[in-house]
Amino acid sequence: MAGREITLKNCRYVVRDHKVIEENIDILIEGRYIVDIGRGLGGGDEIDCREAIVLPGIVNAHTHAAMWIFRGLFDRGELHEWLKNVNKAEEKLTPRIVYLASKIAMLEMLSNGITAFVDMYYFPEETLKAVKETGIRAALGPVLTDEVVEEGESEKLVKSFIEKTKGFSRIKTVVNVRSLYSVSPETIREASKLTQKYDLDIHMHVSETRREIYLCKKRTGLFPVEYLNSLGVLNKRFILAHLGWVTSWELSLIKDKNASIVHCPASDMKLATAGFFPLRESLDFGINVGLGTDGAASNNSLDMFREMKVAVLLQRNNYWRTDIGERDVFRMAIENGYRILNIKGGVIEKNNVADLVLLDVKDLNLNPLSRRNVLSNIVYSANGNNVIATFVGGEIVYHREQKEAIYHSITDTLEEIQECINEIA
Amino acid sequence: MAGREITLKNCRYVVRDHKVIEENIDILIEGRYIVDIGRGLGGGDEIDCREAIVLPGIVNAHTHAAMWIFRGLFDRGELHEWLKNVNKAEEKLTPRIVYLASKIAMLEMLSNGITAFVDMYYFPEETLKAVKETGIRAALGPVLTDEVVEEGESEKLVKSFIEKTKGFSRIKTVVNVRSLYSVSPETIREASKLTQKYDLDIHMHVSETRREIYLCKKRTGLFPVEYLNSLGVLNKRFILAHLGWVTSWELSLIKDKNASIVHCPASDMKLATAGFFPLRESLDFGINVGLGTDGAASNNSLDMFREMKVAVLLQRNNYWRTDIGERDVFRMAIENGYRILNIKGGVIEKNNVADLVLLDVKDLNLNPLSRRNVLSNIVYSANGNNVIATFVGGEIVYHREQKEAIYHSITDTLEEIQECINEIA
Repeated sequence: MAGREITLKNCRYVVRDHKVIEENIDILIEGRYIVDIGRGLGGGDEIDCREAIVLPGIVNAHTHAAMWIFRGLFDRGELHEWLKNVNKAEEKLTPRIVYLASKIAMLEMLSNGITAFVDMYYFPEETLKAVKETGIRAALGPVLTDEVVEEGESEKLVKSFIEKTKGFSRIKTVVNVRSLYSVSPETIREASKLTQKYDLDIHMHVSETRREIYLCKKRTGLFPVEYLNSLGVLNKRFILAHLGWVTSWELSLIKDKNASIVHCPASDMKLATAGFFPLRESLDFGINVGLGTDGAASNNSLDMFREMKVAVLLQRNNYWRTDIGERDVFRMAIENGYRILNIKGGVIEKNNVADLVLLDVKDLNLNPLSRRNVLSNIVYSANGNNVIATFVGGEIVYHREQKEAIYHSITDTLEEIQECINEIA
Repeated sequence: MAGREITLKNCRYVVRDHKVIEENIDILIEGRYIVDIGRGLGGGDEIDCREAIVLPGIVNAHTHAAMWIFRGLFDRGELHEWLKNVNKAEEKLTPRIVYLASKIAMLEMLSNGITAFVDMYYFPEETLKAVKETGIRAALGPVLTDEVVEEGESEKLVKSFIEKTKGFSRIKTVVNVRSLYSVSPETIREASKLTQKYDLDIHMHVSETRREIYLCKKRTGLFPVEYLNSLGVLNKRFILAHLGWVTSWELSLIKDKNASIVHCPASDMKLATAGFFPLRESLDFGINVGLGTDGAASNNSLDMFREMKVAVLLQRNNYWRTDIGERDVFRMAIENGYRILNIKGGVIEKNNVADLVLLDVKDLNLNPLSRRNVLSNIVYSANGNNVIATFVGGEIVYHREQKEAIYHSITDTLEEIQECINEIA
């Protein structure tokens, strides 16, 4: 069965990818997929898109959804100092709070045109439950620590998580390892072994601060990526988040092993990690670099439009040159995100998943508007509130007409969350 | 006559300034002013604000409104290279286009909670016409060049502009001088003389790039601010925009003379000026530092919420420390902006102008929300589209319910503007 048909009629602009933009064109969706793009298409539910810009869904390739609860609570202190406060606060979190907070974070991400995210957090089954309910696409899974390795529990954890995602094509299991400095090499090796056995991704914070580089170098004699390579774990399923401090020869290793990087500029800047992530060099190497907001505890926004712009601003400021531009970051946030997820999407073309975002051409910040500047306006002036609707796998999972209803449906949840916050701060 | 009364009833949060936040409180407006803040107030038109955060209006303290027309056209090249393209495009601008483009920019700024701006552009009478029509507050005026000085025309220009602003309490005449490197010292002296004679502000781009510093030092033996001081023009009415490259002794001079600075982080970063504007030091000196988006040609956003965050991010990235935070930039964008305008505003208190912004607590990006994090959420997560309504001098000059109507009222204008853009690019 092909599933429900939807036609997006007469879309004012369709940003098919970072280069190809079309005007006044239709998109035909059947079930979960885009089946045709052209003029004079029709069938199923027809949606008038004369006042819409259509782009592929955006991937928040590194976040901690449940940390939505900490938005605006910890705004000072460099990363390691900040982490101390956050870790203390995390002791107050219950599985139920993780479920509730991560669910609202997903609603917010969907309202911002984010169709998929890669997550790392405690109680991933709770976040998983929210993913199932909201209709968003996600890669998430157990966080492996030294404790579970010692007890030989990690495989059980991973298998059980895979079991729970069965039947959900939009959910992928990822094996999370917090960081080099928080686990033993055995845990990293074990995580990697499991990802190979079960064909999964592995997701880890790497080279976020100078301090981390210093500790790794002192302890192992190697830079973090060299060290990961020495453990034999670098491969195409490895997602390295941050990488603010990285050498050119580490980039070569990443390229050789086909691992992916996720750049999180706003969070890195806010936490004063002072990173000089060499984005131009990484892209020139042909490394797949995605973009992430990180959690609302550190960013504090979950708006990937803003993240795209900040990525450009940071590079231009750090390198005193303007060679990184709107095309690079648009591609990172969208096409490269789908590559990380290993899903045929991120470009509006036949047979790709129908993960789409509609923006409102009537918003003044998107004008003046023409084919010439539509991509620039999306990257440098758009924000999440320009979103009319978000589609995941052919389903409308957010429409701005629901805004009031969403808020009123979560008022009790917000109160429950606030009670938890009051215990923390 | 006191004028119309409005009561904002039961405001969920009132952010009176960067430190004082109140809950569930009323604000009474009479004519152009706030006349009371407290509980149980009423009278005139009562507006239910149970779902609103109220903050003072935001000042975009350095922009070029008409450059709205160039949004998304010139996104590459460092400042001086970029300027060449922009200057060429500016040759195509007519007074009418300046009027139309700057008017839409003002509508956009109002929709983003910006109640006032400081402008610099050609055909200021056209921008002035739009200011009168939109109800926004502004400081703007003639741009003095070497040509008008030589012909002794500058005083006539300034007097005529002052004449046109008479009777508009929300409009101030400013004498604009583009930059050190584009005019002779005589023009700067003449501009300063006129501001003293007519009690006006003087507004100038200063120390935006390394190149400018180099040229000034080579030509005069002095750094730009030293040079301005040597001309005897630095005083409390001097507004220095940018100042990305400045020495500590220049900051001392600015402090001694009580001049103001306007920081424009996003534009500086996008144009790769590589500035290290010492914001912490400037604030510690007690210098009045405002915040500006610069024009849509370089930013490209006119959203001061985003600008506040970028200001924090830039400082934290450049200085590897987190001492600049939400309070500093909130104050810069609001209270310090009103100080630059020399208007009693920027703080919600009795007898201040009723320039106010209402944000929607139902927007997910403003949650979780409590008195503890409301300021943080405004600075780090809010964007212009969270605005419900904007008041200038007690008048509702924007309400989001007008959004569709505004767009449809400008469709012809957008077409006319697009024709001009097509000639440019």
